[in-house]
Amino acid sequence: MDEVPGSVGTSASFSLRLGQTLFASASLLFMSLGVDFYSYTAFCYLVTIMSLVIPWSLTLALVDGYSVLVKCPVRQPGILLIIVFGDWVLSILTLAAACSTVSVVDLLLHFNGSYCPPKFCSRYQISAAMAFLSWFMSLASALFNLWLLPSL
Amino acid sequence: MDEVPGSVGTSASFSLRLGQTLFASASLLFMSLGVDFYSYTAFCYLVTIMSLVIPWSLTLALVDGYSVLVKCPVRQPGILLIIVFGDWVLSILTLAAACSTVSVVDLLLHFNGSYCPPKFCSRYQISAAMAFLSWFMSLASALFNLWLLPSL
Repeated sequence: MDEVPGSVGTSASFSLRLGQTLFASASLLFMSLGVDFYSYTAFCYLVTIMSLVIPWSLTLALVDGYSVLVKCPVRQPGILLIIVFGDWVLSILTLAAACSTVSVVDLLLHFNGSYCPPKFCSRYQISAAMAFLSWFMSLASALFNLWLLPSL
Repeated sequence: MDEVPGSVGTSASFSLRLGQTLFASASLLFMSLGVDFYSYTAFCYLVTIMSLVIPWSLTLALVDGYSVLVKCPVRQPGILLIIVFGDWVLSILTLAAACSTVSVVDLLLHFNGSYCPPKFCSRYQISAAMAFLSWFMSLASALFNLWLLPSL
């Protein structure tokens, strides 16, 4: 059963979860520290989704870390199904949030600087880039777990 | 092998592909007919992606229709892998395009009408909704085919 690297309870999965948590936290920090993100729907959406991703990934990182330590991976189909479903939903929402943020930043830059001072706009862009990285890792986790599911 | 409904070569897959083609065409038409979509990056992106989705879905609809008629579904792992990969990439790109369009329309409405006359904005919104529907069907196809893949 352990032949799928990156599925729940392996060290690869632990690294993926840690990466998701880190990038999501970075995205949240860059977006919310001293920036008036609440004026734009897309930015509020990104903050909301990142606040959902961080606890989810952190919890699963703890589960993975525990599984690696006690060498007893989670293999109950029910739990795995919930994890796969949550991963998919969160990964789709993260992608949507990242794309919305990028396109809004692009549009704000288009209106030559009156709505978006350069210092703030680069922060928004970094935040969106972090969200994309978090999405990429989340998608990897979701794919690995989905691949494991039919073999149970 | 035929127990996965919605995988390549079934009538459910044929309907999904037809739906994708229809919704993508509707999205393209609403976006491009008489509207100056080329002023905004997100709208150009949507038009580009929809121009990719339409031939892809139409080709696969033809393949499915042919498979249903001659009762000989495609089961070569290589071809199936290409189809799954293409479906995933296009479904992710479609979601990204739809989200970008929605957030840009939302922002344009936020700048009370000076950038977006009501008649045009509702067209953009309908176009984004059609893109979301097309994405949903594309995701369904991708999931069904991915589910079939490990059993080959």
